Amino acid sequence: MIRVAIAGASGYTGFELIRIMVQHPEVRLTAITSRAQMGQRLDDFYPAFRGHCELVFEEPDPAVLTRDADVVFTALPHQAAMDMVPALLDRGVKVVDLSADYRFRDPAVYEAWYQPHKTPELSSQAVYGLPELHREAIRRARLVGNPGCYPTSIILAAAPLLARGLVRPETIIADSKSGVSGAGRGASLAVHFCEVNEGFKAYKVGEHRHTPEIEQELGLLAGKPVSINFTPHLVPMSRGILSTVYATVAAGATAEGIDDAFHNFYSGAPFVRLCKKGEFPSTLQVRGSNHCDLGWRFDPRTRRVIVVSVIDNLTRGASGQAVCNMNLMCGLPEAAGLAAPPWQP
Amino acid sequence: MIRVAIAGASGYTGFELIRIMVQHPEVRLTAITSRAQMGQRLDDFYPAFRGHCELVFEEPDPAVLTRDADVVFTALPHQAAMDMVPALLDRGVKVVDLSADYRFRDPAVYEAWYQPHKTPELSSQAVYGLPELHREAIRRARLVGNPGCYPTSIILAAAPLLARGLVRPETIIADSKSGVSGAGRGASLAVHFCEVNEGFKAYKVGEHRHTPEIEQELGLLAGKPVSINFTPHLVPMSRGILSTVYATVAAGATAEGIDDAFHNFYSGAPFVRLCKKGEFPSTLQVRGSNHCDLGWRFDPRTRRVIVVSVIDNLTRGASGQAVCNMNLMCGLPEAAGLAAPPWQP
Amino acid sequence: MIRVAIAGASGYTGFELIRIMVQHPEVRLTAITSRAQMGQRLDDFYPAFRGHCELVFEEPDPAVLTRDADVVFTALPHQAAMDMVPALLDRGVKVVDLSADYRFRDPAVYEAWYQPHKTPELSSQAVYGLPELHREAIRRARLVGNPGCYPTSIILAAAPLLARGLVRPETIIADSKSGVSGAGRGASLAVHFCEVNEGFKAYKVGEHRHTPEIEQELGLLAGKPVSINFTPHLVPMSRGILSTVYATVAAGATAEGIDDAFHNFYSGAPFVRLCKKGEFPSTLQVRGSNHCDLGWRFDPRTRRVIVVSVIDNLTRGASGQAVCNMNLMCGLPEAAGLAAPPWQP
Amino acid sequence: MIRVAIAGASGYTGFELIRIMVQHPEVRLTAITSRAQMGQRLDDFYPAFRGHCELVFEEPDPAVLTRDADVVFTALPHQAAMDMVPALLDRGVKVVDLSADYRFRDPAVYEAWYQPHKTPELSSQAVYGLPELHREAIRRARLVGNPGCYPTSIILAAAPLLARGLVRPETIIADSKSGVSGAGRGASLAVHFCEVNEGFKAYKVGEHRHTPEIEQELGLLAGKPVSINFTPHLVPMSRGILSTVYATVAAGATAEGIDDAFHNFYSGAPFVRLCKKGEFPSTLQVRGSNHCDLGWRFDPRTRRVIVVSVIDNLTRGASGQAVCNMNLMCGLPEAAGLAAPPWQP
Repeated sequence: MIRVAIAGASGYTGFELIRIMVQHPEVRLTAITSRAQMGQRLDDFYPAFRGHCELVFEEPDPAVLTRDADVVFTALPHQAAMDMVPALLDRGVKVVDLSADYRFRDPAVYEAWYQPHKTPELSSQAVYGLPELHREAIRRARLVGNPGCYPTSIILAAAPLLARGLVRPETIIADSKSGVSGAGRGASLAVHFCEVNEGFKAYKVGEHRHTPEIEQELGLLAGKPVSINFTPHLVPMSRGILSTVYATVAAGATAEGIDDAFHNFYSGAPFVRLCKKGEFPSTLQVRGSNHCDLGWRFDPRTRRVIVVSVIDNLTRGASGQAVCNMNLMCGLPEAAGLAAPPWQP
Repeated sequence: MIRVAIAGASGYTGFELIRIMVQHPEVRLTAITSRAQMGQRLDDFYPAFRGHCELVFEEPDPAVLTRDADVVFTALPHQAAMDMVPALLDRGVKVVDLSADYRFRDPAVYEAWYQPHKTPELSSQAVYGLPELHREAIRRARLVGNPGCYPTSIILAAAPLLARGLVRPETIIADSKSGVSGAGRGASLAVHFCEVNEGFKAYKVGEHRHTPEIEQELGLLAGKPVSINFTPHLVPMSRGILSTVYATVAAGATAEGIDDAFHNFYSGAPFVRLCKKGEFPSTLQVRGSNHCDLGWRFDPRTRRVIVVSVIDNLTRGASGQAVCNMNLMCGLPEAAGLAAPPWQP
Repeated sequence: MIRVAIAGASGYTGFELIRIMVQHPEVRLTAITSRAQMGQRLDDFYPAFRGHCELVFEEPDPAVLTRDADVVFTALPHQAAMDMVPALLDRGVKVVDLSADYRFRDPAVYEAWYQPHKTPELSSQAVYGLPELHREAIRRARLVGNPGCYPTSIILAAAPLLARGLVRPETIIADSKSGVSGAGRGASLAVHFCEVNEGFKAYKVGEHRHTPEIEQELGLLAGKPVSINFTPHLVPMSRGILSTVYATVAAGATAEGIDDAFHNFYSGAPFVRLCKKGEFPSTLQVRGSNHCDLGWRFDPRTRRVIVVSVIDNLTRGASGQAVCNMNLMCGLPEAAGLAAPPWQP
Repeated sequence: MIRVAIAGASGYTGFELIRIMVQHPEVRLTAITSRAQMGQRLDDFYPAFRGHCELVFEEPDPAVLTRDADVVFTALPHQAAMDMVPALLDRGVKVVDLSADYRFRDPAVYEAWYQPHKTPELSSQAVYGLPELHREAIRRARLVGNPGCYPTSIILAAAPLLARGLVRPETIIADSKSGVSGAGRGASLAVHFCEVNEGFKAYKVGEHRHTPEIEQELGLLAGKPVSINFTPHLVPMSRGILSTVYATVAAGATAEGIDDAFHNFYSGAPFVRLCKKGEFPSTLQVRGSNHCDLGWRFDPRTRRVIVVSVIDNLTRGASGQAVCNMNLMCGLPEAAGLAAPPWQP
């Protein structure tokens, strides 16, 4: 059994990590920490867990987290993660970090969009935890920077096209729509039910911090720097992300070539499912699962390809993918503990 | 492994049965039938199941259902169930029927609220599948009438009070609120998104067919006939039922006696969870699980006790409870295949 | 033109007051105040008002509010209202107070459920602003205590029955369900979209502060003190309240007598609409309007009458009713400025 | 007073037309027709209208509709409209048609995307009813083809940019998101609450029939044929459309030039509101109103401009715009009867 501890376990990604862990056949959850809820029983804080987990939130201290752990998940805010991660690694555990702190190969990019980095030397060791792109490196990693929710949905939509040179990288536009849980569990007017319900809006147009993370990975696939437009929107629902990705095809690209690219690129990937021709996915069909479902269409009128990708932002976009990374880092099957079907309705 | 077939598998309770079955460690799902979807792959009809189940909907024929099955679930409309169940029993399988056809001990009650019964002689063999009340009888049953969603929530709320004589049976009022999936998957104006969303209403006030089913079980607990008021309401959400049950206490009843009744009555029940004193449950904390969570309060001003119960209408109110019944009928642990925590948010 | 000022205009009831006022043919809105938004333009704070109102939030000072006003609406929290109202009255304006501070005839009742009252002597001058019960007194009032949202829905449901002696007052149970805007616009975990959406719960069971207000008015109708059970619930929608009111009929009451009571009691009331026999209302059919729609049924099996009432909690349950009170206090037709139909879908 | 009749009044656009008409100070509503509801009172069909309108649905016959009317609104399905409109015009009334049948200047375009046109000769007389583009022609028209909901939101977003030559027309991508009422009131699985709620999806990717309508108007603005990508999505909410429009700027375009274009183009337009710099609109801020609110940003990294537009799909996207067109056709102020502020929350 792999022994697991979670730092920052009281938010939605924490809930989702615990939900998966208590069902995971190869995992024993040994500690959860939360500064705000320290000393409280998990099942008093979240009555949903009554009968499922008897842990108590402890102090977010490296000694506590590594007391009885092989892997630690850090579900902390940016900056708090890099304060914690080095001490965890020093104590010999593997770390999956769900913040943005270890997603960037180039610390300068991180610093341009976030803040000064305290451990830039770790950036080169960290692996970007998107299994479809970096499976082997993740297997060997001791630190994984778990991808953001929007980047997961967008990179998986564009990867086969860029990898095969089927689109012109500079034409990529990603129009994304997310449920509210992506904003976290903190109370604010922006997530007040009455401000969200029956409304739809764009936010951080042209300035969302997930942009450089997407561009890093698309640039690696394209073999050159890529700039994109990325527009996030807020959907009045709790879970789910849908990204609609547009790109102009390269000379010579055909509908068949595009189809082949998707099928070949994701051959053998347990968590990417391809829609039948002419079909497009709904977020409902992946809810609560680690799947990313993809549909696409080549429009000969405009010579653009439109790809629609859906994920559950808390599962594939955060905690499920983190577990997937742990599985790989620990030599387990990629899908261990993640085999339950989506929830519907 | 128990071999399971499902008749009427294309609706929401069918989806939920399949979702549970494909994760159940002791079950192999061998056939699903649906008249409307006959010949279609399950995962084309419900893309959510892609990668999880490769079955094809077959003809709803007893020979098909019993071809390779120990237990058959009938998730059919009233009347269609009693056309199918006798033939299934004749072929030697056990049956869990999710319709109302086998919930009534007295066929005359069924006929007063539904229609003429075609197999009244089976009514006396059928067991009402509420494990907390009839666990031993379910273990020995070959036919279980799986309870309705509202009745499950209401009977579990009132049972300890009636069993101990702590309330006057004739004072019971059950005010229930259900998510929309309780209405099934059929298209109608009543379930049109824009007719449901941002609205709240009562329906079938004083005439809902779940009334006699509730009264049957409450009468058994009270040791005499019971008439109640039951008012169902429609909540603009997909899943969940909350019932608020009111009753005037009997002479001599105390707050402590009421607390004791709940704790003793549900001691050892794996799926009933009691709130801490002063707390009341939300449907969110049981979503996707087989739990029934209960909170209550004695109001000395009016000498009434108010009990609030929550269930997931598709899991505990239908398919999860049906699986629980199958577990008991087959000698498995009551909670087999139903151990996953609730979904939140 | 009546000159109107609003204290505490930045919340949902403030929005709704302004929305009505800018359309009201006999009103000129002259000042809005808000401590938190002081100095900001209304239409920057609420872009919805761009082009409809150019006012700026001012300091919540009696001198500002009465600078150019005949009537002041105080949409302030409890306690803040009684700090402000006496000074407004001293300056000669009429006041409609939307807090609980002036709803109680007996200051001792207020103090038992809220806090010490600073101006108990004003309580006897204040009129409870439910036009169907106190129309004439409201016309003569200079201070109206505008009813709570739940009490409006419950009192209107029960009034005809109590006024005619058709039910036993001690048997009244009010099970109420409200949209989230009733909790106000303040940010908190309790109103976080993901904590509300797809969930349903009861709250403050047996201890909600609207209880004594309901009992005061029902007691006046019954001619004796009345204690009730009142259970509020939170519905995942923005607007609307539905109350389901149960009562055991008095000896001799008949279905026809009950029908007559409703029709006679509300004859001529412009904002109470009675459902056709056998029909029950949905909150959707009153959204955005000042209507209260009522449906009822006598159940001979239990000898109880069940009344279902629906209102829009922000319009009839707060701001629309406040405008209605202003109309009466100023000699305008009761429905002035409130004639627009409900919003659907 | 203008006498108005409505054909096809039982759906959501019919409801919205009636809602506006009963408040319109210059209108008397004289007849409503509906084949399905013929003979039924409006306020029995829609209890929301009780007390607001006493009309009865009549037979959808030109003689009935023109019996006492100056203007007839045809809110009928495609094809049914062109069966009715010629007879209405022959009887001398003005017509605002809410279907697609009279939106196209070139009948061949209509026939390529819809079906054979029965009255192609009327197409040249019909005016596309977008007041910001065709105000003067609408004033003189006797037949207006009222724009589709998506096209309204997209054309208004792109018009200033194309009119000034600030963007390259062939780079336009419109990613649109609509509430469910856009699908109409007919029952189907696609609008079942549980299939929509908590889900988000794209549909008719690359093949939605609003495409040619958008291209027609953008082409007129650009002075040459334009092909775009238009992707509609379904949002789990009842009302509202948000379109995110992307375009690459032309050589020499600047952020200031773009700002100027919007401000100049919409100077004096009563129903277009421009966001402050750096702000983007939510559908909530226009709900129930005829406004179109616009926000935009030039991204120097990619040299694209992103425009976000929001409308209420039933008001500005259908019935409110239709009333606006009637106002212009009848010499009334453009905003007559449409002055009420948006609804929030």
